Amino acid sequence: MREVFQLELREVQDRLVEISELVATSIDKATRAFNESDVALAEECIEDDARIDELAVALDELAITILARQNPVARDLRIVVSALRISASLERMGDLATHIAQLARYRFPDKVVPKSLRPTFAEMGRLDVEIARKLTELLSSQEVELAETIRNDDDKIDALHLSVFDKVLGEKWKGETVDTVDATLASRYHERFADHAVAIAKKVQYLATGEWVPESA
Amino acid sequence: MREVFQLELREVQDRLVEISELVATSIDKATRAFNESDVALAEECIEDDARIDELAVALDELAITILARQNPVARDLRIVVSALRISASLERMGDLATHIAQLARYRFPDKVVPKSLRPTFAEMGRLDVEIARKLTELLSSQEVELAETIRNDDDKIDALHLSVFDKVLGEKWKGETVDTVDATLASRYHERFADHAVAIAKKVQYLATGEWVPESA
Repeated sequence: MREVFQLELREVQDRLVEISELVATSIDKATRAFNESDVALAEECIEDDARIDELAVALDELAITILARQNPVARDLRIVVSALRISASLERMGDLATHIAQLARYRFPDKVVPKSLRPTFAEMGRLDVEIARKLTELLSSQEVELAETIRNDDDKIDALHLSVFDKVLGEKWKGETVDTVDATLASRYHERFADHAVAIAKKVQYLATGEWVPESA
Repeated sequence: MREVFQLELREVQDRLVEISELVATSIDKATRAFNESDVALAEECIEDDARIDELAVALDELAITILARQNPVARDLRIVVSALRISASLERMGDLATHIAQLARYRFPDKVVPKSLRPTFAEMGRLDVEIARKLTELLSSQEVELAETIRNDDDKIDALHLSVFDKVLGEKWKGETVDTVDATLASRYHERFADHAVAIAKKVQYLATGEWVPESA
């Protein structure tokens, strides 16, 4: 029974890695679509999201089956419960990538944000992709040092998020109202994407170190 | 054992109702602070959020203890897993209420949005409060008809959310850039608040009817 359980936990981990990989591909497509006004890539990202949703649902069902059949306790139980939460966050990250792609599709053939903001969004996008890749690596290797670098990247994204507001509210801002709306939404989506990654990283860190991090922290 | 378990499930339900009540109070304070530019109320809402976070963490711990000790299966297991998800959504609704209050505090003594948008936000706020109250009632009574009315209210909020963009992007919009940014964020927060309520309502509906609604739906 114990051996079966270990195999099942391994299966949970493999599936989380698989979903995380898809999320990394998704945010890569979304941010490229956004930055380069590539509507085909935006469409791809939006279509791919159904697969992420499907896999997240399947993983949840697997976790529930494990809870029912194996009655895990202590750390094992927390691993399974964390998997449920990680899958919910990954699913949400997929949604946020889709929202970024939708902005690109909506504004096509124009770019979503005016020139003055493009370097900022290019950097936010690069960091979000980086974070998603590190997250996949973290879920796969459980190397907790990666959690720290994800948090650092998130700090950079938070600073960029604030700088978007500084630019938009600054005297030099020449954007139209639609640019202001889209920059506000896009910045928020990029920032929330990274927040979810940090929440997941905390959970993986706990599972490796035994220090429980509450959902709301 | 079975009797203890039923008592524990009852305890989980009572605690969900308690958190939902606090969330309803929080969104009531937040939207009144927002609409009436009441900074004291905004502060209160922001301070109250720690209590919601605390209760959500405590509920999660209770749910995990029940999973470990009672090894629930089938519908009982799904009730406990759903409680974990519902608590995460309630916690997030508290955060969103806080974000609305923060906008009010930030713009005080000014109002957050210009006159032309105030009736729209008054209505969105009213609906969010209504939704939170219905949700508390639903969690307490399990009357699934309430889930339907929550969904209807959410549809109205979605329509109002779109109408905010129509107004802001319309020719008559005279707001400054800061008004555009704040209206965009505020509208998004109001809309996400209702989304979480719908997600919770679906889970409660499943528990009552046996029809499982996946996380991502």
